[in-house]
Amino acid sequence: MPKWVPLEGNLATPVGFLGAGVAAGIKKVHGALDLALIFSDALDTTSAGVFTTNRVVAAPVVLSRQNLRASGGRARAIIVNSGNANACTGRTGYRTAQETARSVAKALGISESEVLVASTGVIGLPLKPELILNRIPALQKSLSVENASHVARAIMTTDTFPKTYVLRARIDGTSVTLAGIAKGAGMIHPRMATLLSFITTDAAVPPTLLDKMLRAAVAPSFNSVTIDGDTSTNDTVIVLASGRSGVFIRPGSKAADAFLAGLEELCQALARMIARDGEGAKKLITIDVRGARTDADADRVARAIANSPLVKTAVAGSDPNWGRILCAAGYAGANFDPAKVDIRVNGLFLCRRGLDAAFDEAVAKRELEQKEITLRVDLHQGKAAARIWTCDLTHDYITINASYRT
Amino acid sequence: MPKWVPLEGNLATPVGFLGAGVAAGIKKVHGALDLALIFSDALDTTSAGVFTTNRVVAAPVVLSRQNLRASGGRARAIIVNSGNANACTGRTGYRTAQETARSVAKALGISESEVLVASTGVIGLPLKPELILNRIPALQKSLSVENASHVARAIMTTDTFPKTYVLRARIDGTSVTLAGIAKGAGMIHPRMATLLSFITTDAAVPPTLLDKMLRAAVAPSFNSVTIDGDTSTNDTVIVLASGRSGVFIRPGSKAADAFLAGLEELCQALARMIARDGEGAKKLITIDVRGARTDADADRVARAIANSPLVKTAVAGSDPNWGRILCAAGYAGANFDPAKVDIRVNGLFLCRRGLDAAFDEAVAKRELEQKEITLRVDLHQGKAAARIWTCDLTHDYITINASYRT
Repeated sequence: MPKWVPLEGNLATPVGFLGAGVAAGIKKVHGALDLALIFSDALDTTSAGVFTTNRVVAAPVVLSRQNLRASGGRARAIIVNSGNANACTGRTGYRTAQETARSVAKALGISESEVLVASTGVIGLPLKPELILNRIPALQKSLSVENASHVARAIMTTDTFPKTYVLRARIDGTSVTLAGIAKGAGMIHPRMATLLSFITTDAAVPPTLLDKMLRAAVAPSFNSVTIDGDTSTNDTVIVLASGRSGVFIRPGSKAADAFLAGLEELCQALARMIARDGEGAKKLITIDVRGARTDADADRVARAIANSPLVKTAVAGSDPNWGRILCAAGYAGANFDPAKVDIRVNGLFLCRRGLDAAFDEAVAKRELEQKEITLRVDLHQGKAAARIWTCDLTHDYITINASYRT
Repeated sequence: MPKWVPLEGNLATPVGFLGAGVAAGIKKVHGALDLALIFSDALDTTSAGVFTTNRVVAAPVVLSRQNLRASGGRARAIIVNSGNANACTGRTGYRTAQETARSVAKALGISESEVLVASTGVIGLPLKPELILNRIPALQKSLSVENASHVARAIMTTDTFPKTYVLRARIDGTSVTLAGIAKGAGMIHPRMATLLSFITTDAAVPPTLLDKMLRAAVAPSFNSVTIDGDTSTNDTVIVLASGRSGVFIRPGSKAADAFLAGLEELCQALARMIARDGEGAKKLITIDVRGARTDADADRVARAIANSPLVKTAVAGSDPNWGRILCAAGYAGANFDPAKVDIRVNGLFLCRRGLDAAFDEAVAKRELEQKEITLRVDLHQGKAAARIWTCDLTHDYITINASYRT
């Protein structure tokens, strides 16, 4: 299996891509980047996407699903804005997304169904189409490999840092590159990807295989991170494959295994960045559950712990309150015997066989004061395991969310 | 239907009861009340209880379930401590609960199975039995009608006020009294009652009917309140009926309807107090969902909204962010068309037919600044409705929970 090596770069590091970001006045902060374009100039680009499972679906998600279908998985451009989610905006909002796609298609000389649209920001406020439409010429003009680095910044809302990850490997003797960006922070929930993530690659991947691989890669990454248990109306992960490396990925081939491994690694790296940058988060928490009877049980226990505000506030306070962890496991709906459970923070046992492990308080506190913490729960019932990423719950989460809209 | 009238009083206002509370040194604060006893001196007292659905069950819950069964629903005394939950404490913890019941039984001259035990506080720390056993003589000595008012205070942990409610009505021409106390604050979740609630009445109710009625009363009250989505290991609601009013409640009688109505009213009043006093809460939020296709859909939508940290922080900040409400409804797993949904805060429309209702921001802010807020969601799909109580999510929740244990 070829080794994927991280490198500096942006969405245009894979061959064939260009990008740009501009300030369109959608965000309240004057001059902040809030509109971006990603474009593959390769004619045989393929694409795939996964979207929110929320019943309330933002207009751009509706449109992007349609365009992916209409183009037969051959979209080549993504236009994305932050500052307004264009969700709960009815027919007007849908028309805005449509006009946006149309205008981008015209500027790039491609068909409308080759353009995907994504939005993030406040729900329920009308998105003024002219803010976007007026800036499309400027966006198109500034498309370049260098300017692609602005895209990660333009999609940020309450994120505190842009999230970019680039990987390269040799497949069939040729260099293949994968790049991804993501924005997260709040309203991140499993059962769906993160808010927004865009991935580019210069591998050549047939649309149906690309779709299958994206779904496989999203499960142990974007679908395994939770910030606050809310599921957004706008969640979108899109991958574009330009094919420009000349490396063809065929179903069932060794190259396909290698490519999927890279895609998973990329998505996991971005998912961890999202957890680390959860709204108000000071710590990245990995919940590692093992010894469950079934995969479903392992997953349920991991998610219950990851979503427990009591567990997350205890970690914020570096309080080794393992009782809350066991309690959350207890209401997860999984089948296990509490008297068999071990709980560790990093390497340190807090609870052994359901009882206090008589740990040293000062040592436990020190472990919990790390920036990256692993809570390991062994149910000792079977062999199934699950891993979920989350973050601590702090005062800043409240501050950020108490007045997000106004 | 007779009218239930609220009155001042305590758990011993119904005829036949005595109570007492003492400081036993279980709480960290010196001299704080943390041990209490409730006792019915009527020989034919009946009792019923509902307990946590968590797989991790505290020792006192295990023992109380056993004793309720063993006595055939004829327990007469409840001993309760705060400051330590006696949960995740293994066999030692169970023995402590057992010794406690035994010692109380001896002091009161009743059988061990007539004593129920409840605990609340930190999980996973050993509860020193001598702290309780040494104070039982003092508790027994101070049992009185007046001292019963100390019980509500002795069961508090992070509660900011004691929660007592007393109701009286004339049934079959005779005065019947119901009294209840509760403690809540954190780890309150539906699918189970609140942390702790104890109810006394001087009606005479057969054990099986009392059990049935308690379960019916808990559903639209303690099972309809949520603070943080966590389900405790110790949740307990117990009712004791002394029969001393001389009013017999027979199954299927008008008196039974009247009694159940009073029991529900009592439980709802206590449940609302718990929501109002949620950890760090500044506001009581009632989530009123109507127009759902099924009861299950209405319930799912109400609970998703009530458990959304994003909705609860927006209310804390008096931000009319209705998009988060619709978004939470969207991931609830209920069947509805977002384009039909109306959302109001109190009387004010924020969202009409899925779209911004063009409300006045200042007016909306004023509505959200009330101490009691109702979020009304009409799905316009059918006739089913649900009501859930919760509270806003504030900085103080984080402060309280980041260092609860240490």
